Formats: sequence, C-alpha cells, structure tokens
Amino acid sequence: MLIVPEREIADLMTRDAAFDAVEKVFAAMAAREAYNFPVVREAIGHEDALYGFKGGFDQAGLTLGLKAGGYWPNNLEKRGLINHQSTVFLFDPDTGKAKAMVGGNLLTALRTAAASSVSIKHLAREDAKVIGMIGAGHQATFQLRAALEQRNFEKVIGWNYHPEMLPNIEKVASEAGLPFEAVELDGMKEADVIISITSAFAPSLMADHVSPGTHIACMGTDTKGKQEVEGALLAKASVFTDEVAQSITIGEAQHAVAEGLIEVSDVAEVGAVINGTNPGRTSAEQITLFDGTGVGLQDLAVAAAVVDLAVEKGIAIEVDF
Amino acid sequence: MLIVPEREIADLMTRDAAFDAVEKVFAAMAAREAYNFPVVREAIGHEDALYGFKGGFDQAGLTLGLKAGGYWPNNLEKRGLINHQSTVFLFDPDTGKAKAMVGGNLLTALRTAAASSVSIKHLAREDAKVIGMIGAGHQATFQLRAALEQRNFEKVIGWNYHPEMLPNIEKVASEAGLPFEAVELDGMKEADVIISITSAFAPSLMADHVSPGTHIACMGTDTKGKQEVEGALLAKASVFTDEVAQSITIGEAQHAVAEGLIEVSDVAEVGAVINGTNPGRTSAEQITLFDGTGVGLQDLAVAAAVVDLAVEKGIAIEVDF
Repeated sequence: MLIVPEREIADLMTRDAAFDAVEKVFAAMAAREAYNFPVVREAIGHEDALYGFKGGFDQAGLTLGLKAGGYWPNNLEKRGLINHQSTVFLFDPDTGKAKAMVGGNLLTALRTAAASSVSIKHLAREDAKVIGMIGAGHQATFQLRAALEQRNFEKVIGWNYHPEMLPNIEKVASEAGLPFEAVELDGMKEADVIISITSAFAPSLMADHVSPGTHIACMGTDTKGKQEVEGALLAKASVFTDEVAQSITIGEAQHAVAEGLIEVSDVAEVGAVINGTNPGRTSAEQITLFDGTGVGLQDLAVAAAVVDLAVEKGIAIEVDF
Repeated sequence: MLIVPEREIADLMTRDAAFDAVEKVFAAMAAREAYNFPVVREAIGHEDALYGFKGGFDQAGLTLGLKAGGYWPNNLEKRGLINHQSTVFLFDPDTGKAKAMVGGNLLTALRTAAASSVSIKHLAREDAKVIGMIGAGHQATFQLRAALEQRNFEKVIGWNYHPEMLPNIEKVASEAGLPFEAVELDGMKEADVIISITSAFAPSLMADHVSPGTHIACMGTDTKGKQEVEGALLAKASVFTDEVAQSITIGEAQHAVAEGLIEVSDVAEVGAVINGTNPGRTSAEQITLFDGTGVGLQDLAVAAAVVDLAVEKGIAIEVDF
C-alpha cells in the first residue's frame, strides 16, 4: 500500500503529466474501455458540508478506485484549511485490495485544468492568439496556466463578476510574458479561445459575445442549476464534453437540452475527437464548445500518474497494509 | 492519518465491541441521527469482480466515510487471497480530511454477525433454548458464535444445502459445549431462534417450518433476486430490519412486498426496538423476523471502534498524510 500525501503533490506532479493522464482517460472513455460509476454527493447536515464519492474503472489503464471528499465551507475561516478536501483511493483491479492513497486537493485543480487544455489542443484553431478568461478565482489561474501551453497565445483578456480579482489571472499572464487586458463580456469577441470557470447560477457569456471560430471551454458547471453561458451559444456551437450523461444533467448542456435548443445527440465526447472517430473542428468559422463536468476517472488517472512519479522518486510512503 | 491493517483486526476487535458498535448505530439510524448514502455496486467487467462503495454519516457518533471493495471470485483459486476484499475509510466530519484506513475483511464478518446478535438480544424470547442454523459456510460460524452469547442456548441444530459443510457449525457448537444435530428443514420447528446465512436465490425455510414464538434472522439476502425464506413467513411474522429502504428492495422483504403479502409499512427498524419507540416482541407466540441487509454505517461503526482500540494499544500506524 502506497501513500502520497498532499504536501508532496506540488513537487511531483507536472502539468504535462496531468495533461497526458486526462487525455488518455478521455480517449479510453470514448472507446468504452473506461467508465465512471454513479456519483454519490450528500449534504451531510454537519458543517454545511457536501461529501461524496466519484469512482470509476479504466480497463485500458487498469485504474480502479474513487475520489472521496467534498466541500467544507467553514474550513478556511474556522481552521485555516482549504474548503475543498479530497482524497483519492486506488485499488488493484486484479484482487480488489487497496493499492494507494493520494492527497486529492491539488490533483483536482490540475485535472480540471488539464481537461480544458485537452479540449483546446483538440478543438481550438491552430492559429489562436487571444485567450479570454471568465472567472478569476484560484482555479482560473490553473486553467489559464495549462491553456497557455496549448497554443502560441499573444494576449490574455479577462472578465470577472468581481473585477478586483482580475489581478490573479493578470499575474499568470505576465509570468508567461503576455499582456493582459480587463474587458467587458462583449469584449470576449476578440478571443479565439474562452475558458469560463465560475460558480455562477446564471449565464454571463451570451451567444453574441462570441466570434466565429472560437473555442469555449465551460469548466464551472458541475451541478444542477449552475450555468455559465447562454443556451443559445450551445445551439450555435459544436458541443463536446467529457461525459455526455453528466453534461446533459449537471453540466452546461443541461440548460440547452431542457430548453429544446439542442438534442442529447448533439453532445459529443471529446475522447472521440482524440481517438479520431469524431472529426472535431472542421472549419475555421465553427464555434466549438467543451462542457467540462469533471469525472472520477480524471481523478484516478492523475492519482495513478502521481503514484508512479512518487515511486520513481522514492517519495511514496509504503505501509504494510 | 491512522492505519489499521487487516492482519491486526483479529487481535484487536472483540465480538463485544462489534456488538456495541452495531447496536449503537442501528439505534442512531432509527433516531434519524445516522443515515446511509446510496450504495454504488458495479460489475466492472474485469476478473468477474463486483466493486463498490457503501458510505454513510453518523452524526451521533461523528463517524463519516465508506467501505470500498467487493467480491473477486477468482482470488482464492488464482492467488490464495480471500474473495471478499474491502477497506474502510473514515473521514473527519468537521474538516473532510481522511482520518483512518482500516482493513475491512474480518470487520465485515464481525459486523454481519453482530447484526443478527443485536436482533436476537432485542427480539428473541428470553427462554430460547434451541438455535437453528440454515447455512454452514465461513460466515455461518461467525453468526453462530456471536448468537450463542445472547441467550442460554442448550442445543444447536443445522441444515445446509451441502450437508458435508455442517461440521463447520458443529465445531462452533462443541467449542461452546453444546450438542449439535443435523436436521431437515422441517426439523427447524424445534428452534427458538433461526439464523439463515446462505446466498440462495430460492427460499429454503418455509412458513410451516417455523414454530410460534421463534425469532428468525435472515442474513444472506443483500441483492435483488436472492431469497432465503418463503414470503408467507414474513406475512406471519413481525418483520424488522436494519434499513427499510434496503429491506424492501434488496433484502428478504423484497419478495413478500412484491407478492403483496406484506406492506412496506409492516417493516420496522430494529433500531426503534433498541430505542424503545417500537415494542418489538409483545408475546411468547409471536414470530419475529429480522431482515439483515447490511449497511455501510455498520462498517463505519466497527471500523471506528477498532481504530479506538488500535490507538489505545499503540498498534495504529500513524502516517503524516
């Protein structure tokens, strides 16, 4: 039994390793070699916490297990701990024995950032120059940092409901040597790639804020009721997702489908694009939209990668369990 | 983070501690202070394994977490490992951080045995003398050993589909200094308490195999389609269970309810008897039946108890996670 504590993850895990792991598991999902289990998510009635399990099995990568944890809204204020707390447990699919336990907090941020990056790699125009950020919280910095590695971006523009947070993403832009500009939502027309990463319950980005040829990654909507972009934008776009079942129920597509603006069959898996069974972007004018809902297999994939790295570097704690 | 490996459980955990933990959590469930989460159970398509998660939260005992694992039917033959493999993970309900990891194999056997014992304590006649066993596998020995502590039994009788396995339970009887007799199912009329612990998909014990005043604990049915006793027996009995929702869907009561022989409202929680809000047995002629389906909270309760014992004895492995 191997243990990789949270404190080791930052030095072990790279954006590249997270990208590879997530790209591979999205491909395995689309090839029906990997699947996610039903998600358990419970308001436990204590500390206002949401707690649950996201599990899955990847027969291609032989990764089995779950992420357990959730959201403890009082952690930071009461205890100086981060509010999102999670742990990944991996099992040996040949025997059912527990195999590894890995801190899941930073991994969750990295796998979410990797997902929008995978969508940019496979769906954005090769000549994309301007990236627009909607949202400027902690997670937005992860999304932007990972995205900048996918194209030769020349400029970052950003909008946030609380503009005083924009310096968070401006800082990432300047670390990458790129100019940053705060814009109104309407200014997103300049962007070739847009990432939205908010926890909004009403759309910010409207269909007419988006120019032809843009790729949009909607990364914030993971619950019934949340919404970042107008349904009409999905109707104008070719829509891709990590998992169709989640996209249409708890993802961004829940609204467009409910409003009758798109059909369930209009939502394709990004993994199929990776595998070459879906053509993905077929023109420079096409709008592509990735609805990133977040699946357990992403967590398992990055955790398995970090365990390998920890073993390689002699950092994994071995317990005779 | 505390770790209690499987190999330590046998020396740490007592039947008494398991009994107390299970009795307490059944009571908390009936008082609505503890609840189980939806169960995840997946045929993963690898090694014919069934894998899943049983989680819950006990606000009274502040126990939060899950049992993960399942059934790997080829383990014993291929690898010399037991086929049921499980691990319990406990979380701090105040923060969401992982708190303990505990080997769950022996604990599962002990908590299942504790459940029928709790039902015997609270529902069997005080003057019960003869205990009947239906089933003589490995788990049957746990059920019998625990049950013998609840009343002054004077004799053990047993029936098994494969009679050559009966020496398993005969051995437990003779360890307790009690005579054992192999009987036909019809011979169960002599029993004051009957425990059925098989994995049958058709009933063995019929209504007319059971005398007035008997308490029956049905411990084997935990899946749609399994069945140990005739539906008509539930119609004749006062029916109790660990969790009503499981009892009527995957427990023994699934059949009697589906056949219209009993109503959902006829199934009561044994926890309510423990709490004194349900009178339980009210006459010496009444047949009582406990439908033990097995809930995640039982696993969490015995795991929390074993962590306390391991800490007390300095055996818990502490990892800076």
